[in-house]
Amino acid sequence: MTLLVQKYGGTSVADIARIRAVAARVAACRARGVQVVVVVSAMAGETNRLLRLCAEIGAEGLREQDSVIATGEQIVAGLLALELQRLGVAARSLTGEQVGIRTDAAYGKARIVDIRSEVLRSALNNDEVPVVPGFQGRTATGDIATLGRGGTDTTAVALSAALSAKECQIFTDVDGIYTTDPRVCADARRLETVHVEEMLEMASLGAKVLQLRSVEFACKYQVPLRVLSSLTEDHDCTGGTLITYEENEMEDPVVTGVAFNKEEAKITVAGVPDKPGIAHLLLSAVAKSNINVDMIVQNVSSAGRTDFSFTVQRDEFARAMVTTKTAAATIGATEVLGDADIAKVSVVGIGMRSHPGVASLMFKTLSDHQINIQMISTSEIKTSVVIAEAQMETAVQALHTAFDLAQAPQEERITGGAEQ
Amino acid sequence: MTLLVQKYGGTSVADIARIRAVAARVAACRARGVQVVVVVSAMAGETNRLLRLCAEIGAEGLREQDSVIATGEQIVAGLLALELQRLGVAARSLTGEQVGIRTDAAYGKARIVDIRSEVLRSALNNDEVPVVPGFQGRTATGDIATLGRGGTDTTAVALSAALSAKECQIFTDVDGIYTTDPRVCADARRLETVHVEEMLEMASLGAKVLQLRSVEFACKYQVPLRVLSSLTEDHDCTGGTLITYEENEMEDPVVTGVAFNKEEAKITVAGVPDKPGIAHLLLSAVAKSNINVDMIVQNVSSAGRTDFSFTVQRDEFARAMVTTKTAAATIGATEVLGDADIAKVSVVGIGMRSHPGVASLMFKTLSDHQINIQMISTSEIKTSVVIAEAQMETAVQALHTAFDLAQAPQEERITGGAEQ
Repeated sequence: MTLLVQKYGGTSVADIARIRAVAARVAACRARGVQVVVVVSAMAGETNRLLRLCAEIGAEGLREQDSVIATGEQIVAGLLALELQRLGVAARSLTGEQVGIRTDAAYGKARIVDIRSEVLRSALNNDEVPVVPGFQGRTATGDIATLGRGGTDTTAVALSAALSAKECQIFTDVDGIYTTDPRVCADARRLETVHVEEMLEMASLGAKVLQLRSVEFACKYQVPLRVLSSLTEDHDCTGGTLITYEENEMEDPVVTGVAFNKEEAKITVAGVPDKPGIAHLLLSAVAKSNINVDMIVQNVSSAGRTDFSFTVQRDEFARAMVTTKTAAATIGATEVLGDADIAKVSVVGIGMRSHPGVASLMFKTLSDHQINIQMISTSEIKTSVVIAEAQMETAVQALHTAFDLAQAPQEERITGGAEQ
Repeated sequence: MTLLVQKYGGTSVADIARIRAVAARVAACRARGVQVVVVVSAMAGETNRLLRLCAEIGAEGLREQDSVIATGEQIVAGLLALELQRLGVAARSLTGEQVGIRTDAAYGKARIVDIRSEVLRSALNNDEVPVVPGFQGRTATGDIATLGRGGTDTTAVALSAALSAKECQIFTDVDGIYTTDPRVCADARRLETVHVEEMLEMASLGAKVLQLRSVEFACKYQVPLRVLSSLTEDHDCTGGTLITYEENEMEDPVVTGVAFNKEEAKITVAGVPDKPGIAHLLLSAVAKSNINVDMIVQNVSSAGRTDFSFTVQRDEFARAMVTTKTAAATIGATEVLGDADIAKVSVVGIGMRSHPGVASLMFKTLSDHQINIQMISTSEIKTSVVIAEAQMETAVQALHTAFDLAQAPQEERITGGAEQ
């Protein structure tokens, strides 16, 4: 019998009407003879409401805070089970304790250490739909511990692995992974499949649909992960985008998508004496201030001096400038320059590994559109550039066209059956 | 070491400011070396909000509903523990599972079957304040089950019994049990102690401070119960009203209080044939319609016919009239008369048992004030009359004065040390 684990996020269960829509889809699956385990988030806004209550108290106490914020998912689990019962579907909500998800005691960002799936299996054997509150587990001493932001995805993936589900289906308010953001590029195309590494690059570049951690978890246990929309009437649950783990060089398109990020700022330390330990000295100062660094670029030096650039989150820019200036002074750098009006644009594709011409086409395309490249950084499956923020949309649209992303690759059109 | 179990109701934890006041009182107790277990309700209105969400779904499912509504208490437990920690008091919120309150599976109105108090004792031994979500327990299979309205009082009493607490203190928005309602009678006096049976009569007559079920529970386990206000700065926790279980004829005042109830309606079946089984026939018809009957009065018959009167909740009056008329027709009664403009007024006092003159003084007082008595009903420790609703306040004030209730009895003034 086919078993699906379906996860519904906060906007998918935002009110009773949305909860009814979720139940209708689950009921349709049951009617087709498909077994379903449902994992739910709290209603949109509820977790933040509870966090604000804790913040109002003004005490640090992650153990207590976890106990407070874990209630949001429990409420939705109960409501969804009620609605399933109303539709005549045997269903039962379970507590975090009953589901048997054991975590460590790192409250607020706990990690799952074990899943005892007997209660879930027994419910499934009784033809019941277990409805599981996501985002939480219990520690060895029975304390409630939450899994951090995106934790409900993690719960769904973990249960999929423990139950060997056919798919872990993540329902959200977008209907899959696109070649780029449709708001920026009108002919952006939904991908029927995407390789997990491409997905990771896309996600970390700002096209956030899935939480990084849950994707890594899915990858580790090779859980087939499908992203799809809870807003459509896709009761077959075969739409969206399926994340794959195997590579197939014949079929993999060279470039899968164009990702971008406007949330960064660039810092350049100019005239850095070119000697060992300088990069470490600069970056460790920044790291000690708990500022995350994304791209780092250093070019060859001339006359014993070099320029050293890196990007940080834009909301940490001011703080990073102060820290960097202090550090730069101690190493005798000439100057520290900052620029918040930048954007990072990346082309991503697993086929890039065997097609060296990608970077070249990318740079030519940008040049054709009079777009100046400020920084370049590459990895095996992506090439990223930093450009002026004002030119970002032009760059994304031009690259999307240059790499012919609006058309599905030949192979995909033959093998992808979901849309036919 | 003195151990108190303190229960704070919904209005006492209605917002963060009120939660801070609760924590300050608990901290003051700890500073005096008193051990405290705190039992909390959901924030005022929260349980109803959650019930409305369930009602909106429109499915009957008490198991799921319990899982939804039990979250309200868990949130407050976490917030209060956080605030205690902020004040430097070691505290930990516990889940229903951790507290070890086992219930039967009668969801929505479960009964406690067992308490495994090891976790609480271990927290107390660590000098921690355990903060317990009231109103709930876990069934043998780990389901959440709630104890019904007033269930948080029941939790507090049960934990007091299990831990042999010195007192179970019920904090609410009134500062104790009064000789009558101060809104009706300006010189109503707070009782420093009240015998549990008087308390039960007062509560069932509408002076609702404690839930009947929790008082019965306290009585069964002889748990000293104190009602006090969370609005005052009584950090000694010795104010309010202490409920006692021993009788002391020398000290017991003859009459302790005057209770009243405007929420009833009277139905009289006139010209009932006086033969066996008639009362049963009339009342079983009403009972089958799930209508609760309070007072029942039947006088001796004349000419083979009698009149039969009873009172019902006013909001069930219309329904009760229909049912009664049908039943009356089948037994050949002459007429069914209804009156919703009535009030029940009772004098309550355990000393009444040995002082037969109470009813007589009550009737004389009412007569002196031109108040006509429509029905009379007596029990061992109370005498109740039904009168016109318009005369209720006059009756209550007159009786309060006639029985000298504004003055504390001599003995109590000597022994009661709390107010001095």
